[in-house]
Amino acid sequence: MNKHRIFVDFAVTPEVLELLQAGTRGHQLVFPKTPVTSVLARPERDPQFATVDIAFGQPEPEAIAEAGRLKWIHVSTSGITRYDNPQFHALMAERKIPVTNSASVYNEACAVHALSFMVAQARKLPQALQCRTGNGSKLWLEIRGSSGTLRGETVLILGYGAIGKRLAELLQPFHMKVMAYRRKPLGDEGVPVITQGQLPGALAEADHVVNILPDSAATRHFFDAARFAMIKPGAIFYNIGRGTTVVQDALLEALRSGRIGAGWLDVTEPEPLPDEHSLRKEPNCFITPHVAGGHVGETKTLVRHFLRNFERFVRGEPLLDRVM
Amino acid sequence: MNKHRIFVDFAVTPEVLELLQAGTRGHQLVFPKTPVTSVLARPERDPQFATVDIAFGQPEPEAIAEAGRLKWIHVSTSGITRYDNPQFHALMAERKIPVTNSASVYNEACAVHALSFMVAQARKLPQALQCRTGNGSKLWLEIRGSSGTLRGETVLILGYGAIGKRLAELLQPFHMKVMAYRRKPLGDEGVPVITQGQLPGALAEADHVVNILPDSAATRHFFDAARFAMIKPGAIFYNIGRGTTVVQDALLEALRSGRIGAGWLDVTEPEPLPDEHSLRKEPNCFITPHVAGGHVGETKTLVRHFLRNFERFVRGEPLLDRVM
Repeated sequence: MNKHRIFVDFAVTPEVLELLQAGTRGHQLVFPKTPVTSVLARPERDPQFATVDIAFGQPEPEAIAEAGRLKWIHVSTSGITRYDNPQFHALMAERKIPVTNSASVYNEACAVHALSFMVAQARKLPQALQCRTGNGSKLWLEIRGSSGTLRGETVLILGYGAIGKRLAELLQPFHMKVMAYRRKPLGDEGVPVITQGQLPGALAEADHVVNILPDSAATRHFFDAARFAMIKPGAIFYNIGRGTTVVQDALLEALRSGRIGAGWLDVTEPEPLPDEHSLRKEPNCFITPHVAGGHVGETKTLVRHFLRNFERFVRGEPLLDRVM
Repeated sequence: MNKHRIFVDFAVTPEVLELLQAGTRGHQLVFPKTPVTSVLARPERDPQFATVDIAFGQPEPEAIAEAGRLKWIHVSTSGITRYDNPQFHALMAERKIPVTNSASVYNEACAVHALSFMVAQARKLPQALQCRTGNGSKLWLEIRGSSGTLRGETVLILGYGAIGKRLAELLQPFHMKVMAYRRKPLGDEGVPVITQGQLPGALAEADHVVNILPDSAATRHFFDAARFAMIKPGAIFYNIGRGTTVVQDALLEALRSGRIGAGWLDVTEPEPLPDEHSLRKEPNCFITPHVAGGHVGETKTLVRHFLRNFERFVRGEPLLDRVM
């Protein structure tokens, strides 16, 4: 058996370390001097990286280019922004390095987070939790009379991968019409997939526009003023993908004009969104700080997912969540 | 065809009046001089009431007792507190007056409201929507690391009528264990129904205790200190039934001691709960002002439900949502 050197670039607790060691017995774990604390931060360059076979975490593309022994990269997030460009794809293809991500780790939490936005909006939770008056008051009548159940409404999910699919499953009992928009339809969607040409019509029809688009050259500023102008007046806009896919000034204008009824964002540009940002002052804009994928025991789930893939790698089997 | 006199005790808009008139053509609608604005307020006594065949709204039990022509009562709420006592049951049985309620009108919204509480709690929405710091901050790590997906957790639904059943349907894709507690199991529950004797064990097992008990002599103060002490430490308590089923001081104590992890209440005693009430100051107590059943076009749904039942009444068919 080949003995692999595995670079793990994030900080681990003793418990997680034990899990990692147990799952990689006979191989060697390599940790950087300065572990990465944020998945969005750029890690310090580590000379050991050039000597490893496997990278688990958020390795720098430049470091990867120079790491001659690298045989597999397992990214610790769902998003693969820093790698998703033609040059990197070509490099991985040329060097036959498979790239996998951790989509499976975050799908469930992200889908539930998106659903929590949708039902909180339907039930007017932010307003209702603040309301101190009761039966018959102006505010009470307003909340009670504008709450909904989602039934019969239409939702368009953009970026229909594992999260979108799971969200569609969670929405199944609500009797909604679900439509998906996906760059490369695979035929396994289980819901109607609309084409680029059908997008304006779908945006005009949907009561709920759920943006789960990943960040890439093709999706950057996808939701600009022109696209917001296509949205059905009063529809609700959700973003649990990446902040960069939205032109925030256009979103702000759409909120202010009432073009969209409310915005629910787990991602923004930048993160965290500054306190004084205008979106923070919009009464119908609700922002969570990029926590959609979070869940109890997250790092353990992440490590277990890597270890499942590591077993497959060792046995030469197809890898899970392969993205390149 | 008998011409019926129908007493409608609440205020209607011209649009709703038209709907009512269209659905009761050939019969006579009777409105009080002072329409009821709140389902919980006691209406003024109206002399016309003694002359009607059908009552739609919230008629006073005393007025009903004296209304000799009354042939059917359709209550405009889901709760039937003021009627749910042995004397009233006996009176209706003796005079052969069927009593129906509007459960079908509010089920869907109530179930979605309960689900919104559950997923908002799972995703820590109240905290996340307030968090202005990002990736790596203490608060961010706390929120992200304590969020969940409900998967694999256990929920006990107390008062398993139409709302509870619908909630169980909405929870179906979450892969939870659902248990029901019901006064009179009918065998149509579709989920395990626990007996009175099994209640302590179920309370000790459930991660989520959803109280949808109606108000009656049997349920008043159902959740007292003894019952809260049976709940699994850290479990989440929800109340979308009636405030009177909970001893609020016991709930407060359970929240303060951390016995329960959070409380989500749509109903309290009294309503609205005074601003200075201690429950309002508990950081893990989340209160909406009895809006669970509310939805866009509520009065129209209410009237349409009555009219469906009115057609059945005229044809002598079994009535929907019959409760006596």
